[in-house]
Amino acid sequence: MGPDCPVPFGPGERILLAHGGGGRLMRELIEKELLPALRNPALEALADGAVLDAPHGRLAFSTDGFVVQPLFFPGGDIGTLAVNGTVNDIAMCGAEPLHLSLGFIIEEGLPIADLRRVVASVAAASRAARVRIVTGDTKVVEHGKGDGLFVHTSGVGVVRAADPLGAERVRPGDAVLVSGPIGQHGVAVMAVREGLAFAKPILSDCAPVADAVLALIEAGVKLRCLRDPTRGGVATALNEIASQALVEIELDEAALPVSDEVAGACEVLGLDPLYVACEGRFLAVVAPEGAARALGVLRSREDCRGAARIATVKPAAAGLVTVRTPIGGVRVVDVLSGEQLPRIC
Amino acid sequence: MGPDCPVPFGPGERILLAHGGGGRLMRELIEKELLPALRNPALEALADGAVLDAPHGRLAFSTDGFVVQPLFFPGGDIGTLAVNGTVNDIAMCGAEPLHLSLGFIIEEGLPIADLRRVVASVAAASRAARVRIVTGDTKVVEHGKGDGLFVHTSGVGVVRAADPLGAERVRPGDAVLVSGPIGQHGVAVMAVREGLAFAKPILSDCAPVADAVLALIEAGVKLRCLRDPTRGGVATALNEIASQALVEIELDEAALPVSDEVAGACEVLGLDPLYVACEGRFLAVVAPEGAARALGVLRSREDCRGAARIATVKPAAAGLVTVRTPIGGVRVVDVLSGEQLPRIC
Repeated sequence: MGPDCPVPFGPGERILLAHGGGGRLMRELIEKELLPALRNPALEALADGAVLDAPHGRLAFSTDGFVVQPLFFPGGDIGTLAVNGTVNDIAMCGAEPLHLSLGFIIEEGLPIADLRRVVASVAAASRAARVRIVTGDTKVVEHGKGDGLFVHTSGVGVVRAADPLGAERVRPGDAVLVSGPIGQHGVAVMAVREGLAFAKPILSDCAPVADAVLALIEAGVKLRCLRDPTRGGVATALNEIASQALVEIELDEAALPVSDEVAGACEVLGLDPLYVACEGRFLAVVAPEGAARALGVLRSREDCRGAARIATVKPAAAGLVTVRTPIGGVRVVDVLSGEQLPRIC
Repeated sequence: MGPDCPVPFGPGERILLAHGGGGRLMRELIEKELLPALRNPALEALADGAVLDAPHGRLAFSTDGFVVQPLFFPGGDIGTLAVNGTVNDIAMCGAEPLHLSLGFIIEEGLPIADLRRVVASVAAASRAARVRIVTGDTKVVEHGKGDGLFVHTSGVGVVRAADPLGAERVRPGDAVLVSGPIGQHGVAVMAVREGLAFAKPILSDCAPVADAVLALIEAGVKLRCLRDPTRGGVATALNEIASQALVEIELDEAALPVSDEVAGACEVLGLDPLYVACEGRFLAVVAPEGAARALGVLRSREDCRGAARIATVKPAAAGLVTVRTPIGGVRVVDVLSGEQLPRIC
């Protein structure tokens, strides 16, 4: 075997079915691979659940499953995605994320080095988002019955927004902001999957957005609705809002922040950036009088420099999203039947 | 084709990859298959997360993944298991379960009829356990990259036990109770997997135990520690407690409630009932003075008629579980390396 031949792993370096059996091997896996990276008092009890102080305020509770392929991609991996995905869902409730649960479904044969790398990412992403992994679960399925690793996270947070948020609060005249350039996550995953190499690699935007949301709340911006444009991208998220609010959302195509790299990659891959998932951006629908202030708050932050006002809400009999093109035309931006990018998160 | 031949499903009757894409098909799946069965105000918002009133008291938070094969077994299915598994983990914190999240990872090609059946079970089990599914997530992976259906649930509850519970509170002299006959769940799943037919089919014990736990708390029984003997069974759960408490737990083999059917099936299958998973039983370690009362409270309940005092805690230098055999011998009951029954939950 030359140096490039893969060296076969010994059995101890890959996950075995028995690692999910509840016995000694599972205990070792948890104590050697998971606890040291994620340690905190609630998790350390290794009980069936975590007991936590109740926050003073309403609770936000959310869950997300992650099946991204490949597990590792430029700018992140399934671990960073699993933490930020749920942190961001909690943030979209106008809430501060506090505690996460972490569930693994591991395919027998996964290199333990891969698991270790994911756990390290979970730990780093949790620290960055100031949340704790307080409870968890690990299952193992036979080789050929999974796909390396699936991750589930759920999160608990405390609502900080003074008024309730929701699509039903959106009104004609409201402004729609996006917190940064769109489409990076989907393009980053797709590029590595298709084996494309760009002069400058496109990194996933995977990041927590909770601090930016809390900054808007602290600034007293009148928020109507928050949504993170993950699967299905900005187009799908706006369609969901429009159909729940029964309004037209008119996009200003020229205002949409899309980097040259993403625009170029989308052309090569035959994708429309409007439908490509972000994992570190959010859409904020704000009352007209708060739009300029909200944009200022976002742009003053390092992580939202590229924020933009991208759409205006208009009255309509049924929910729809339209786009005003740079040459003055108008077309309807519909929801796709499925997804142009499967298993992006 | 004769009447016994399976009729091929049309594409609309099986899950497609596009059902997980975040687009119109996914919306239809959620609105037609999930919402009608699980409907409640928090879920109906179809937002990124649920906003809930904070309970008055400490929070319990737990998560569990479910990969059982087959998906349907005598006495339950992956849906009943997913609800009761997390409800029971919350109960083991001395808490009343309130809200659940529900995550599906579906393998492309799963008959929608199977999904519908699981969702109906989730709905029925939630009603029986008086919890609500308040938030959820659905992913789809390609055929051959999953195994029909994996389910993740997380739960939030409010702690009702006056004193903290935990293995570290267990003291020599304490009594160990089990809430009913052991081993039914594992044997029920294994029998159907092995194609065994018994004169009287063995049903899984899958059920919520929260009400029984709350009854003990309301009766003022001094609880030290609660644990549900799922993967690895009673032997593994007791070993976990013993090693965390640094005590010996001496089992009285003659007192262990095992039905004749389960004992017979275990012989056929080559299993030790002590290691076989239960999904509707719990172990309660109670202070000596509370043991008789706790047993009375349990046995007065329809769902805990078969409760028994099965072990006594003794001082020891290191944690271990021993069994006093009917003829007076003593042997050590160790933890298995893996699991005699893979993918039982």
